[in-house]
Amino acid sequence: FKFGLAEEEDVIGVVTGLAWTEVGGDLLSIEALRLPGKGRMKTTGKLGDVMKESIDAASSYVRSRSVSLGVKPPEFEKMDIHVHVPEGATPKDGPSAGIGMVTSIVSVLTQIPVRRDVAMTGEVTLRGNVLPIGGLKEKLLAALRGGIKTVLIPKDNAKDLVDIPDTVKDGMEIIPVANVTEVLNIALTRKPEPVEWDETTELVASSGSSKNEHGLAAH
Amino acid sequence: FKFGLAEEEDVIGVVTGLAWTEVGGDLLSIEALRLPGKGRMKTTGKLGDVMKESIDAASSYVRSRSVSLGVKPPEFEKMDIHVHVPEGATPKDGPSAGIGMVTSIVSVLTQIPVRRDVAMTGEVTLRGNVLPIGGLKEKLLAALRGGIKTVLIPKDNAKDLVDIPDTVKDGMEIIPVANVTEVLNIALTRKPEPVEWDETTELVASSGSSKNEHGLAAH
Amino acid sequence: FKFGLAEEEDVIGVVTGLAWTEVGGDLLSIEALRLPGKGRMKTTGKLGDVMKESIDAASSYVRSRSVSLGVKPPEFEKMDIHVHVPEGATPKDGPSAGIGMVTSIVSVLTQIPVRRDVAMTGEVTLRGNVLPIGGLKEKLLAALRGGIKTVLIPKDNAKDLVDIPDTVKDGMEIIPVANVTEVLNIALTRKPEPVEWDETTELVASSGSSKNEHGLAAH
Amino acid sequence: FKFGLAEEEDVIGVVTGLAWTEVGGDLLSIEALRLPGKGRMKTTGKLGDVMKESIDAASSYVRSRSVSLGVKPPEFEKMDIHVHVPEGATPKDGPSAGIGMVTSIVSVLTQIPVRRDVAMTGEVTLRGNVLPIGGLKEKLLAALRGGIKTVLIPKDNAKDLVDIPDTVKDGMEIIPVANVTEVLNIALTRKPEPVEWDETTELVASSGSSKNEHGLAAH
Amino acid sequence: FKFGLAEEEDVIGVVTGLAWTEVGGDLLSIEALRLPGKGRMKTTGKLGDVMKESIDAASSYVRSRSVSLGVKPPEFEKMDIHVHVPEGATPKDGPSAGIGMVTSIVSVLTQIPVRRDVAMTGEVTLRGNVLPIGGLKEKLLAALRGGIKTVLIPKDNAKDLVDIPDTVKDGMEIIPVANVTEVLNIALTRKPEPVEWDETTELVASSGSSKNEHGLAAH
Amino acid sequence: FKFGLAEEEDVIGVVTGLAWTEVGGDLLSIEALRLPGKGRMKTTGKLGDVMKESIDAASSYVRSRSVSLGVKPPEFEKMDIHVHVPEGATPKDGPSAGIGMVTSIVSVLTQIPVRRDVAMTGEVTLRGNVLPIGGLKEKLLAALRGGIKTVLIPKDNAKDLVDIPDTVKDGMEIIPVANVTEVLNIALTRKPEPVEWDETTELVASSGSSKNEHGLAAH
Ligand SMILES: [Ca+2]
Ligand SMILES: [Ca+2]
Ligand SMILES: [Ca+2]
Ligand SMILES: [Ca+2]
Ligand SMILES: [Ca+2]
Ligand SMILES: [Ca+2]
Ligand SMILES: [Ca+2]
Ligand SMILES: [Ca+2]
Ligand SMILES: [Ca+2]
Ligand SMILES: [Ca+2]
Ligand SMILES: [Ca+2]
Ligand SMILES: [Ca+2]
Repeated sequence: FKFGLAEEEDVIGVVTGLAWTEVGGDLLSIEALRLPGKGRMKTTGKLGDVMKESIDAASSYVRSRSVSLGVKPPEFEKMDIHVHVPEGATPKDGPSAGIGMVTSIVSVLTQIPVRRDVAMTGEVTLRGNVLPIGGLKEKLLAALRGGIKTVLIPKDNAKDLVDIPDTVKDGMEIIPVANVTEVLNIALTRKPEPVEWDETTELVASSGSSKNEHGLAAH
Repeated sequence: FKFGLAEEEDVIGVVTGLAWTEVGGDLLSIEALRLPGKGRMKTTGKLGDVMKESIDAASSYVRSRSVSLGVKPPEFEKMDIHVHVPEGATPKDGPSAGIGMVTSIVSVLTQIPVRRDVAMTGEVTLRGNVLPIGGLKEKLLAALRGGIKTVLIPKDNAKDLVDIPDTVKDGMEIIPVANVTEVLNIALTRKPEPVEWDETTELVASSGSSKNEHGLAAH
Repeated sequence: FKFGLAEEEDVIGVVTGLAWTEVGGDLLSIEALRLPGKGRMKTTGKLGDVMKESIDAASSYVRSRSVSLGVKPPEFEKMDIHVHVPEGATPKDGPSAGIGMVTSIVSVLTQIPVRRDVAMTGEVTLRGNVLPIGGLKEKLLAALRGGIKTVLIPKDNAKDLVDIPDTVKDGMEIIPVANVTEVLNIALTRKPEPVEWDETTELVASSGSSKNEHGLAAH
Repeated sequence: FKFGLAEEEDVIGVVTGLAWTEVGGDLLSIEALRLPGKGRMKTTGKLGDVMKESIDAASSYVRSRSVSLGVKPPEFEKMDIHVHVPEGATPKDGPSAGIGMVTSIVSVLTQIPVRRDVAMTGEVTLRGNVLPIGGLKEKLLAALRGGIKTVLIPKDNAKDLVDIPDTVKDGMEIIPVANVTEVLNIALTRKPEPVEWDETTELVASSGSSKNEHGLAAH
Repeated sequence: FKFGLAEEEDVIGVVTGLAWTEVGGDLLSIEALRLPGKGRMKTTGKLGDVMKESIDAASSYVRSRSVSLGVKPPEFEKMDIHVHVPEGATPKDGPSAGIGMVTSIVSVLTQIPVRRDVAMTGEVTLRGNVLPIGGLKEKLLAALRGGIKTVLIPKDNAKDLVDIPDTVKDGMEIIPVANVTEVLNIALTRKPEPVEWDETTELVASSGSSKNEHGLAAH
Repeated sequence: FKFGLAEEEDVIGVVTGLAWTEVGGDLLSIEALRLPGKGRMKTTGKLGDVMKESIDAASSYVRSRSVSLGVKPPEFEKMDIHVHVPEGATPKDGPSAGIGMVTSIVSVLTQIPVRRDVAMTGEVTLRGNVLPIGGLKEKLLAALRGGIKTVLIPKDNAKDLVDIPDTVKDGMEIIPVANVTEVLNIALTRKPEPVEWDETTELVASSGSSKNEHGLAAH
């Protein structure tokens, strides 16, 4: 596990993001962990307010889509999620890790590994749309240096690819994405399977057992 | 989905507001999401205190009118609402997104889509009155550039329309509004339907079922 | 609804206060709203700490007098109260809106409208005494401009009326008040009616019903 | 009710303290209110952290002595106490209102009025000892101007009385006090009566009733 | 009760600490109070963050040793502890009151008085070790002036005693201590007695009574 | 117990970390304590935000691995953990105490002592990977001075050992580690034993006992 280099195997809950400062781009490891709990979200890694809010947005998006991801809504009240962005002494900020946050949380919820050779950058909205980001060139250079094979970028940044050197574009597959569904299709090693969930039925089933001791539970 | 351009289809919970800074006007996407929860309100998008308070006011207005919007009051205790204003790195503030916040929250509660070609600006009071805003000219120019067909402005700003170029006024329908009822009539694709709600009856009914198994519930 | 002008009809929960800055006086709209809830108080409108504390004091005064105002104490635990002071972008502070806060909260609790042509200014204590304020002249001028017919001022400011021009004093009725009872008698369109409340009896009655199905409740 | 002058009649929960700044001394009205609640303490009046802590200390002292003051400990969990120091726009700080805070809280708990012609100054410890204060001369002058007949000062300040003009010492009774018991004996219009309280017995009695329906409760 | 002088009699929950600033040393009165409550810790007296943390550490140490001090762990959930350091207007900080905080809390929990003629200084760890402090000379001089007979200092400061004037060392007994057990043996007027406590047995006994009315409790 | 020197015996919950400032390295004592409680984490010792976050990350890692460490997940809800880093007046920060925090928490949970002659430095991720740190030379010198026999350093710092004087490398065993499992194998005096835990079975067993008094519990 070297920083600046991608993960060596597919891991659940660990996503490679792309950061960008004046001095260049870098790979950014994003880690999510699911713990028994009470629906709390913890974030660590010297994150600025904008990055914390991007985790909130990612989390709400995932919760709003949980049934199609295979997670029944009440499960969220029985778990805590911890999102950490290592190197803990380095300040990080900005919204562009949004789709990475979504992917990390979905991976940990579904227990589906993330492809180790994929990196991604893009702001996410509450409806899963991918918004454009800055520092595309620096980020792509960092991805190339880090041995990344596939980079997901926002569709609205596709027009900026004309300014990227061919050596970079030839060395990796660069895929513009418009929404989170496309991101997950590429970044996860398999597709999440929806769960059946009917709020009325489920709640009756769980609370209703004591009322149906002598007969059929017909929901 | 391009920023600076309006949404391409009618969407539930997404409203186009109008922002204004020294360097001009811009479209502002406002997103609300309803999640299973406990009556919490979450706000994200680098919002200043005044804009956060405008969401509080919008939320209280909506709750106070919930029965006429088709939502029974106890439902609020079983949901969380998340209001997000993307581009997460751009600071936003001011009260003029108030009627947009109301529309977004009502849309997500009623599941009625918002007309994609409508933009709006106006402060809202707890009783749903629409108060005047600043930057009318810049906001209207941004709406025109963004392909908006209809703009709702506060009635108290109607007097400022004399200073707006005819090219702008001819390119869009500009409708002065005095209260939220007018806003919702125009911005939603259909009208919310009231729900019947009698606090005494409903509460007795829900808590009383086990006591009345063998007879009439006579309240 | 024009700012700088009084409301056009009697409204429940909306009170006209009087503000004062270096550049003159202004009418201040104070709005209270009652919502189903858990005894929380929410305040918005870019209010400074002193004005927020004046709302706390007003709220405690009202709760301490609730029986004489027709509200049973346990009801407070089932509602939230939201006090908002529009124009949300304008900072407001100071204790002089205290009696306006009391009137607004009492109006919304009792559902008795506030007289639209009355404005008021005065700090309030926990026992409902009215303390003197500053900027009397500027406030009275603003009231006159706004079409106010009756202005309530603290009794301890009556001595300052000698400095007020006759045109102002002739154009409105200016009534010095010493306590909140006088304020409510003038500002509400009718008098609140006390409710009967005996803590012991009420609590026993509500919790005791299931124990007395077959006989008299003899407490 | 004039500021700078003492109250005109004995009132429950209102105590006259003495404040001191560079520009002289002043009377300080301290108001406590008891409300149905959950054991919360609210403080308002633009109070600094030291004065807020002096209210915390006063409150803990009173709670630790509640049985001798006639209040059963569990009652504290069913009430909120609000301590307010009017004029809400004037900042106040310092620990010297401590014994005034104690007296105000005890008065409101016991419903015993405070003597209107008594003023007091002194820091209080958790065990009810009275610690010395500053500004004695300025405070005594303010008390004299305000028509106060009796002033309670810390015993450790008695030595400073040699510097006070005879006109002041002749115009009022100045009583050095060493602890809160002495303060309450003088300031309240009658003595609090202790209540009987045995934690074991009381708790058994209240929770045990349903277990003893057919016989004697023998504790 | 004079500041700068030690207490005149043995008191429960009051400990004499030693403070030190550039202008010299001083006695520091530390007061703890136990109240019916919910396991909360309150601290007052204008305490800096380091001193507040030293109270946290003292409290955790005491809780971890509670059985040997005669306090059953669940009792902590039924009480609040208030630690106050008078003179409320004087800022205090630093970790050296740690063993004083422990002694004060143990005294109030066990109701064993603290010897009035003992003063102490020393940082405490979570395991009750005593760490060295600064300002030894100034603190010892203040203790001497204050009539203290015995001073407890950290064992790691014993080497610094060579720099202390003989008049000081002859006037008081100075005892280096390595851990809290030594402190309590000297400072309390008698030894705390351990209580028997077996978590499994106790919890079963308290929750199990209703299930075992007719037979043996066989766990 | 001398600071700057290692502990004299193996202790549960106390770990020797390594700190580094411009003026050199130092040993850092890390103490964890387990108390009856409600799942809270308390941290003290003038810790900066990055060090507090490293404790959060350590805690989440440990909770995620608790079954393999012998701790059933629900036990966390019945305890509080307090992590303290003495000398309370010295500010501490940075992520490099991460593996020390993990070791301290694991020791206190498992009641397995930590080897007294081992020191360690390394940032930890949520998955227990060890990330590189700064100040290696200064930290190793401090360990040598303090009598440490074994120092654990991050594997990614092994390349920096070429710059370390032979006197240091000959005086201690320096072990590069890549993950927490290696750390615990070396630092604890024996290996934690896994506990059997099947969430479904356990929860049914504990809540189901009263329902199965007369027969088999067939899950
Ligand atoms: Ca890096
Ligand atoms: Ca970014
Ligand atoms: Ca834009
Ligand atoms: Ca605005
Ligand atoms: Ca205005
Ligand atoms: Ca004012
Ligand atoms: Ca005054
Ligand atoms: Ca003072
Ligand atoms: Ca002193
Ligand atoms: Ca100190
Ligand atoms: Ca050291
Ligand atoms: Ca570090």
